Amino acid sequence: MVENYGFMGKVLRVNLTDKSSVEEDLDPAKLKGFMGGAGLAIKYLVDEVPAETDALAEGNKLYFSLGPLGGTAAPCASRMSIVAKSPLTNGVGMCMTGGYFPVEMKFAGYDMIIIEGKSEDPCYLWIKDGVVKFRSAEKMWGMNTVDTQQIIKDELNDQNIRVACIGQAGENLSKMACIINERRAAGRKGLGAVMGAKNLKAVAVRGSSEVKVARPDDFKKAVSFMLKQMKDSPVLYSEFSKLGTPMVVHVTSESGIFPAKNYEDTGKWMPQHLGVEDNNERRKGNEHCYRCPVGCSQIKVAKNRFKGAMSDPEFETFYSFGGTLCIDDVDAIIAADRYCDEVGLDTMSAGATIAFAMECFEKGLLTLEETGGISINFGDADVMMELLQKITYRDGIGDLLADGTRIAAGKIGKDAYKYAMHVKGLELPGYDVRGAKAHGLNYATSYTGADHNRGYAFQEIFGIPVPEPVDRFAYEGKGKLTVWNQNSRAVTSDCAPMCAFLLDMALPAVCLKNTADLVSSATGIDFTEDDVYMAGERLNNAAHIFNVLAGMTRADDTLPYRLINEEIKEGPSKGQRIAQEDLDYMLDEYYSERGWDERGIPTREKLEALSMHEELGKLESRGLI
Amino acid sequence: MVENYGFMGKVLRVNLTDKSSVEEDLDPAKLKGFMGGAGLAIKYLVDEVPAETDALAEGNKLYFSLGPLGGTAAPCASRMSIVAKSPLTNGVGMCMTGGYFPVEMKFAGYDMIIIEGKSEDPCYLWIKDGVVKFRSAEKMWGMNTVDTQQIIKDELNDQNIRVACIGQAGENLSKMACIINERRAAGRKGLGAVMGAKNLKAVAVRGSSEVKVARPDDFKKAVSFMLKQMKDSPVLYSEFSKLGTPMVVHVTSESGIFPAKNYEDTGKWMPQHLGVEDNNERRKGNEHCYRCPVGCSQIKVAKNRFKGAMSDPEFETFYSFGGTLCIDDVDAIIAADRYCDEVGLDTMSAGATIAFAMECFEKGLLTLEETGGISINFGDADVMMELLQKITYRDGIGDLLADGTRIAAGKIGKDAYKYAMHVKGLELPGYDVRGAKAHGLNYATSYTGADHNRGYAFQEIFGIPVPEPVDRFAYEGKGKLTVWNQNSRAVTSDCAPMCAFLLDMALPAVCLKNTADLVSSATGIDFTEDDVYMAGERLNNAAHIFNVLAGMTRADDTLPYRLINEEIKEGPSKGQRIAQEDLDYMLDEYYSERGWDERGIPTREKLEALSMHEELGKLESRGLI
Repeated sequence: MVENYGFMGKVLRVNLTDKSSVEEDLDPAKLKGFMGGAGLAIKYLVDEVPAETDALAEGNKLYFSLGPLGGTAAPCASRMSIVAKSPLTNGVGMCMTGGYFPVEMKFAGYDMIIIEGKSEDPCYLWIKDGVVKFRSAEKMWGMNTVDTQQIIKDELNDQNIRVACIGQAGENLSKMACIINERRAAGRKGLGAVMGAKNLKAVAVRGSSEVKVARPDDFKKAVSFMLKQMKDSPVLYSEFSKLGTPMVVHVTSESGIFPAKNYEDTGKWMPQHLGVEDNNERRKGNEHCYRCPVGCSQIKVAKNRFKGAMSDPEFETFYSFGGTLCIDDVDAIIAADRYCDEVGLDTMSAGATIAFAMECFEKGLLTLEETGGISINFGDADVMMELLQKITYRDGIGDLLADGTRIAAGKIGKDAYKYAMHVKGLELPGYDVRGAKAHGLNYATSYTGADHNRGYAFQEIFGIPVPEPVDRFAYEGKGKLTVWNQNSRAVTSDCAPMCAFLLDMALPAVCLKNTADLVSSATGIDFTEDDVYMAGERLNNAAHIFNVLAGMTRADDTLPYRLINEEIKEGPSKGQRIAQEDLDYMLDEYYSERGWDERGIPTREKLEALSMHEELGKLESRGLI
Repeated sequence: MVENYGFMGKVLRVNLTDKSSVEEDLDPAKLKGFMGGAGLAIKYLVDEVPAETDALAEGNKLYFSLGPLGGTAAPCASRMSIVAKSPLTNGVGMCMTGGYFPVEMKFAGYDMIIIEGKSEDPCYLWIKDGVVKFRSAEKMWGMNTVDTQQIIKDELNDQNIRVACIGQAGENLSKMACIINERRAAGRKGLGAVMGAKNLKAVAVRGSSEVKVARPDDFKKAVSFMLKQMKDSPVLYSEFSKLGTPMVVHVTSESGIFPAKNYEDTGKWMPQHLGVEDNNERRKGNEHCYRCPVGCSQIKVAKNRFKGAMSDPEFETFYSFGGTLCIDDVDAIIAADRYCDEVGLDTMSAGATIAFAMECFEKGLLTLEETGGISINFGDADVMMELLQKITYRDGIGDLLADGTRIAAGKIGKDAYKYAMHVKGLELPGYDVRGAKAHGLNYATSYTGADHNRGYAFQEIFGIPVPEPVDRFAYEGKGKLTVWNQNSRAVTSDCAPMCAFLLDMALPAVCLKNTADLVSSATGIDFTEDDVYMAGERLNNAAHIFNVLAGMTRADDTLPYRLINEEIKEGPSKGQRIAQEDLDYMLDEYYSERGWDERGIPTREKLEALSMHEELGKLESRGLI
């Protein structure tokens, strides 16, 4: 049924311990329920990995998972979900990446690669048209991600190979380490450390399979509809393709929610040039993912003393190395972004952790002795660069910071927790959600921690009235909205999967229908809009259940101390916070809308309605239902 | 006659000023006389570019020139000669490079690309199977060579494109700027600045032409002979492929000619670990050029504070960033090498120029005010890294140093010339030729300046008794030997062209015969051993005549002050120098052997014997004959 139709029908299961691999049929029973991508991978994770597994132990597994649209003619669908238990959150770690690796993996014959065990020596996987080889990565160990990709292509004598790999941060098990393919990152939740712990430097893929669709005429129609929506978008080509995500610096600044100084000075500190206008002289062009007509990635080159560093800092990096560090030197931000891409470090968690360190230093919680003599002050770009290097190699104070704010705060003790801007261990993205309550509730409840991408409240951030207009400061209705955002985003951008930016800018109102039409015609499995939505709901329930089994409770569905207890001091969101009682109000509504009890445990009724009997059984066996 | 037989038969002539291009037939009359590669390109240069042309002006031309063996089954023949008037020497600039670009250029349909004029805006050439496009390089301007190559491949959507490009050093017209393809460098004589001056960031090639040979059976026989010689070599696979050129650190140290402290401490300062043994833990593997079974390039990764920098420092780089700077930190040498490859800076000239600056600083010829407050002392790896950056961007003292030792010494004045280790403006390689007289004579007389590759005296360095054993300290016979070395090396490694290392290690005694057999069977043009040798002789005469026409005289065929006037102080070559009278003795013998008069001007008889009537006419019209 599924072979070649959107899916290749094949899962590759690899064991690094004994260097074996086996092909399995993709379980068709899971397809209707979880569609593909993140949904399918999380379902496998929940089924296969005990929730209490140490994320850096041999028992954790890595899932590289594609959806039914990758490799087809659907635009912007070269997306891949990488799933494992996260060493940063100790819950479900899920990241999306784009570029070219995802489709090449499908051309190589697989919808999903499951990586188990741990290699004795550094190795990489080389997968070509169904042939799997375990190769020594001794040569690449210690190399950055740019070199690693090139050396593997050279060694295998094929420049069209695509490589997903870790840099030195992943080798050194930083819990902020990411996985890089081309110049794209599966950035968050420390999945690079999972690869590092497995002694897996890289996965290289190359293939020539043809990806067919089940109903070509219907599929073509759905693609045409999508392309027309994209063309009709008032922002996608006219602004977004020229400015990329850094345009959000201005959007968030205008509503007073661009974070500054570790969230202490939100609304107060905002050099206008941090955004897009003054960046244009550094802007060298666009980069496109496979079959993307937009090319939102803005190649930029640093000047001044960071001359020649080339990168494409996204909005989030302007936040994490700019706003929250009070660094207004765009060149330094470009250079830091580049450095992180090279060594495979998540720019967001890294920047937020440095902001935490700066505040701890200013407040006397970190002494010069502890920092190795470095004065870690806000606004100091050289210190930022130095700390990034120390984090990468766990050198001195870098060892304390390499595991993110939660662990560092625990080690520092005293009041440090008050300055650790994370949820479930994942550092906050660049939205001060005190001024965007649904976005805040999403941070609190997302199964991956403070993750803007798992249920982006575009209604509050961009004022898009879908499904209806909202007041960003109001609490009422935000539980319901967040559930909708999380479920619909999960399935469209994470399961299908398609580029989230595309969905926001061109298809917000029709993303479920669009996905249903594309996926149904691609796979031949009929998905209604309700089926699509329900797949997203299943994903969120399955992931949440894994977290619950891993020990998380309602207390983990929270926000950092500062957002609950301190008001934004200036600007258009002045006076806003999310007090504990307001958070509880939103949480109650959210749990109720989800069909979860007041502890945040899914009810029997809900799980039965979703046909999630296995997950129900797991909760029962632990006495949680 | 020549089409597809070793040669494609086509020259591409490109004009950057008006963005036009035209195909020309390769001049068969020049083939027998100059064979290909460097010989052919130098012949074109002499014919087309007035010798007085400013090397950085629009009137200079760049020649990318292949020989008859590239793209055939001959091993180690993916070699290309790049020729232009050199901004560093103001004479013929000629560099060889390897890797993959050379064969890909031939597959794209051309034996030679001639680049004329100057583009108004940054551009790059994109040549695919005979189709030539001029594309904007605004996007890549300011980027390093690694990024530039990748961005061009991405932009053109073909990862198998090969790119030769400049980095920031070439953009900023450093006369030490090189041209990089893959991780190979056409390193010396500032040809990167010629590209920069033309606003030419890169040349990208891709092709699918088949390269035929004229007499396949004979060719196969010649290749088999060559492979057998390689297999029988006592060092090629057993040592050289494992150690690469850094093994020469030990060879030269043992004979007391590894330079230290800007040649002041040769024989005295030599940390044993600078060579190969202790490098093995940093050694990550080998890199191969196209169709090379040896893979001498040793990928290395830096540790300590330069962690993660990956490069493949050759012997010459261990000299230029190690010995002559008294830096014994191998990691720093790897990092500096990597930096230079990225920004496109010749490691040899850059290191030698920093050594010059260090000595000037120590001797008080450069003050702290002039250095911008930097104490430029021997042994300081951080200062080396800082100066490399300053040179790249012509920042402060870097502006003075960016044009090499000769120009810097001229600007500093006083005794600075005594510490400028160059010949004809080209900085010295890593052999203190006071202890290897023929090698020294070669430095003095090579048409490119102090260039070890244009007539390598392997007899003195390695003790290889071909054509006969020599005493490295003797002066007698060195004129004759140098002529033989220059002529035979020119034709085998620069015209055919084949890898020079291969010829040294496997075929020293039979390289002329081997070349004759390969080239004859590949092209169908019969070359005897004498024809081959004479092509090398013509090359050296043509290039020398260009230099003479550009104003060089016997006074330019000299050595640095220190080598003439100071003795090596310690070690196995203690007491050696090349006094002016000894140099004159060797020069007289050399000129006589060349058939040149005592001024170093080729005689009418010699040029007639070589059928070099056009060159003879040029000398006549200037009243030099």
